[in-house]
Amino acid sequence: QKALRIAVIPGDGIGVEVTPYGVRCLEAIGEIYGIPLHFEEFEFASVPYYKKHGDMLPKDWKTVLSQFDAIYFGAVGMPDEVPDEVTLWGSLIKFRREFDQYVNLRPCRLIEGVRSPLAGRKPGDIDFWIVRENTEGEYSSIGGKIFEGTDREIVMQETVMTRFGVDRVLKYAFDLAQSRPRKRLTSATKSNGINTTMPWWDSRVREMAEKYPDVNVDKYHIDILTAHFVQKPNIFDVVVGSNLFGDILSDLGPACTGTIGIAPSANINPEGKFPSLFEPVHGSAPDIAGQGIANPIGMIWAGQMLLQHFGHTEAAEVLLKAVENVLARSEPDVLTADMGGRGSTKILGEAIIAEI
Amino acid sequence: QKALRIAVIPGDGIGVEVTPYGVRCLEAIGEIYGIPLHFEEFEFASVPYYKKHGDMLPKDWKTVLSQFDAIYFGAVGMPDEVPDEVTLWGSLIKFRREFDQYVNLRPCRLIEGVRSPLAGRKPGDIDFWIVRENTEGEYSSIGGKIFEGTDREIVMQETVMTRFGVDRVLKYAFDLAQSRPRKRLTSATKSNGINTTMPWWDSRVREMAEKYPDVNVDKYHIDILTAHFVQKPNIFDVVVGSNLFGDILSDLGPACTGTIGIAPSANINPEGKFPSLFEPVHGSAPDIAGQGIANPIGMIWAGQMLLQHFGHTEAAEVLLKAVENVLARSEPDVLTADMGGRGSTKILGEAIIAEI
Ligand SMILES: CC(C)[C@H](C(=O)O)[C@@H](O)C(=O)O
Ligand SMILES: CC(C)[C@H](C(=O)O)[C@@H](O)C(=O)O
Repeated sequence: QKALRIAVIPGDGIGVEVTPYGVRCLEAIGEIYGIPLHFEEFEFASVPYYKKHGDMLPKDWKTVLSQFDAIYFGAVGMPDEVPDEVTLWGSLIKFRREFDQYVNLRPCRLIEGVRSPLAGRKPGDIDFWIVRENTEGEYSSIGGKIFEGTDREIVMQETVMTRFGVDRVLKYAFDLAQSRPRKRLTSATKSNGINTTMPWWDSRVREMAEKYPDVNVDKYHIDILTAHFVQKPNIFDVVVGSNLFGDILSDLGPACTGTIGIAPSANINPEGKFPSLFEPVHGSAPDIAGQGIANPIGMIWAGQMLLQHFGHTEAAEVLLKAVENVLARSEPDVLTADMGGRGSTKILGEAIIAEI
Repeated sequence: QKALRIAVIPGDGIGVEVTPYGVRCLEAIGEIYGIPLHFEEFEFASVPYYKKHGDMLPKDWKTVLSQFDAIYFGAVGMPDEVPDEVTLWGSLIKFRREFDQYVNLRPCRLIEGVRSPLAGRKPGDIDFWIVRENTEGEYSSIGGKIFEGTDREIVMQETVMTRFGVDRVLKYAFDLAQSRPRKRLTSATKSNGINTTMPWWDSRVREMAEKYPDVNVDKYHIDILTAHFVQKPNIFDVVVGSNLFGDILSDLGPACTGTIGIAPSANINPEGKFPSLFEPVHGSAPDIAGQGIANPIGMIWAGQMLLQHFGHTEAAEVLLKAVENVLARSEPDVLTADMGGRGSTKILGEAIIAEI
C-alpha cells in the first residue's frame, strides 16, 4: 500500500496549537487501520515566514506541494502584524485557486454534548452539508481604485462567475443531495438585489435541476436564508452557495450547532489532479492564541474528512465516533471554553487520542 | 401646522394586506396628538401595475412622489409571475437610489412576548441598530455577460464603492453610536477575502473613527459576524455594513429576536432633499399571501419610524408602546403564526389600534 503523503502547514495563531493534535489523531487511526501516512511539515504560509522572506510562500511552492496527496492546514493570519488580505491571498486563497479546489465542503451537525445557542434543538435536528464554490465569484482578483486619496475616490471589485466554474460545483452539490435520504438541495441566491450574476446563478441551478428530477430543489435569498438557519435549521439537507455566500453560511451554520471550534472544511479538487486541502473552519484567532485553550476538534475533524476523502471510510467513522464519544461525556474539565468548559487544547486533544 | 404628506404604496402580496393596518395606526395616533396626516395611495410599484403597463412605475413617478414628505411602502414582487430583479430594480431599489435614501436603518430588539429562537435570551438582551448603506456597493447596475449561452459563458457584476457614499453612511452610524449610552460601533467587513473594496472600507472606518474618539469601534468579517449574532447578540450596539452585508444582517438580526414579521426599516435621505421611505423588512411573501395571516407589526412599526423621523417623538413612543403592550400580553388568539399564535392580520392589527 502506497503511503498517503500529507503536507502539514500549521500556519499562525491557534493553527499552530491545534495542528499537532490533528496529526496525532491521524497517526493513531492510521496505525490501527494500517493506513500508511507520511507527514511533512512546512513553515511557510505563516506570518513569521512572511516577515523573514517578504512573501507567504517560496517560489517553488506549487512544485513542492504538488508532490503531496493532501494538505493539512491549520490557520493563517495575524492581522495586527500583516493585513489579512496579504496573508490569505498569499496562501490559502492561492492554494484553493491554483490547486483548483473548487468544492469547499463543510458539515453542519448538532452533536450530543455540544450546547446549541438555539432553543430546543437536539442532536440530529441539525444535520446538513454546505457546498461552497471555492475558486471564483466574489473573491475575485479584478478590482481597483480611481481618484485615490481624493473626495472623488471610487473603488471597484468585480464578481466573476463562469458557467464552467458554477456548473461543476452545482453538479457536485446535486450529486451529494442525490446520495442522501432526503435528496434536498437549497441554493443560496440574491437575485432580487444582485441583478446580473445572481439571476444567472439561479438559471444555472434550474438547468442542472432538470438532470436530477429526484432531487427536491429550492432557493432562498441569502438574507432570509440566514434567518432560516436560525429559525428552522432542520429543513436543510445540502445547501449550495457562491464563494461569499458559502463562506457566510458555513460560519453561521456551525455557530448554530454550538461552536465554530469543532467545524471542519474540505477544499476539494474532485478530479484529484491537485492535492485537496483540509482545515478547520475557524481562523488563527489571535485573540485567544498562545493561551492553549483553542478547540482542537475543528482540526481533528478536518483530518477525518481527509480520511473519508481517500476512501478510508471505516477509519473516518471511528475517528468521528471518538470525537462524538468525548463530546457526549460533556465533561466541563475536558471541553474547551468555546463549549462552556474549562479544558485546554491539550486535555481535549489527549482525551480524543485516548478514545481512539 | 402643515400636514405630513404620505404616499402609500401597498405593492404586492402581504404588502397589500398589512398596509391598511399601518395607515390606520398612524391615523389613530395622528388624531390623538393632533398631527395632520395626508395619505394618498398609489397602485404602481406592483405586479398588477406592471402587467397592465409593462413597467413598474409611470414615467412621471419622480415628480409625483417628490411632492410627498414620505413614502409608506408595503412590499413588492411576485416571483412566479415576474422575476424579482425586474420588480425590485423597477421600484424599491430605484426609489432608494434616485431619492438618495442612503441610510437604511433597522432596529433589532428582543421584545417581551416574542419568543426568540435563541436559548436563554430575554427582553433587553438584544437591542441594537443596523445601519446599512443603501445606494451603492454590491447592488450595482454595472455588469454583464460574454459568450452567452455557451460553455465559455462568463458573467460579471461590479461592486462599486465611493468615498462620498461610504463616508456619509459611516458618519450617520458613528453619530448614532455616539448618541447611545454604550457608544459602540461594529463594522461588517470581509477584507480577508474581498480584497479590493473591503480593505478600503476598513480604512474609511479607521479614518472616520479618529473623529469620534469616544466611540468604541470594532470590526468583524461578515462570516464570523453572523455567528456572533447568534452566539452573543448582546454585544452589539450599532452595526454598520455595506448594502449587501447590511441586507443580510438585517434579516438575521430580527430572526434572532423572534420573527422578521415585526421588523421595520427606514430608508432615509437624511438631508430631506427627497422623501424617505418606510417599509417592513419582510417582503411580499407569496407563500402566505392571500391567507390574511401576515404579521402587520413590521408595517406598523415602520409607521412608528416615520413619526420618529419627523420629530413626533412622543407619538412614536406611544405607538411603539401600544405594539409592545399587545405583544407582552402574548395571547395565542391574537399573535400571528410567525410568532406561534393563531391570530390573523386583522385580529392583531385591530388589537394594536384598540390599544392606541
Ligand atoms: C427585496 C430586496 C431587493 C431587498 C434588498 O435586498 O434590499 C430586501 O431584502 C430588503 O432588505 O429591503
Ligand atoms: C480566511 C478567509 C479568507 C476564509 C474565507 O473567507 O474563505 C475563511 O473565512 C474560510 O471560510 O475559509
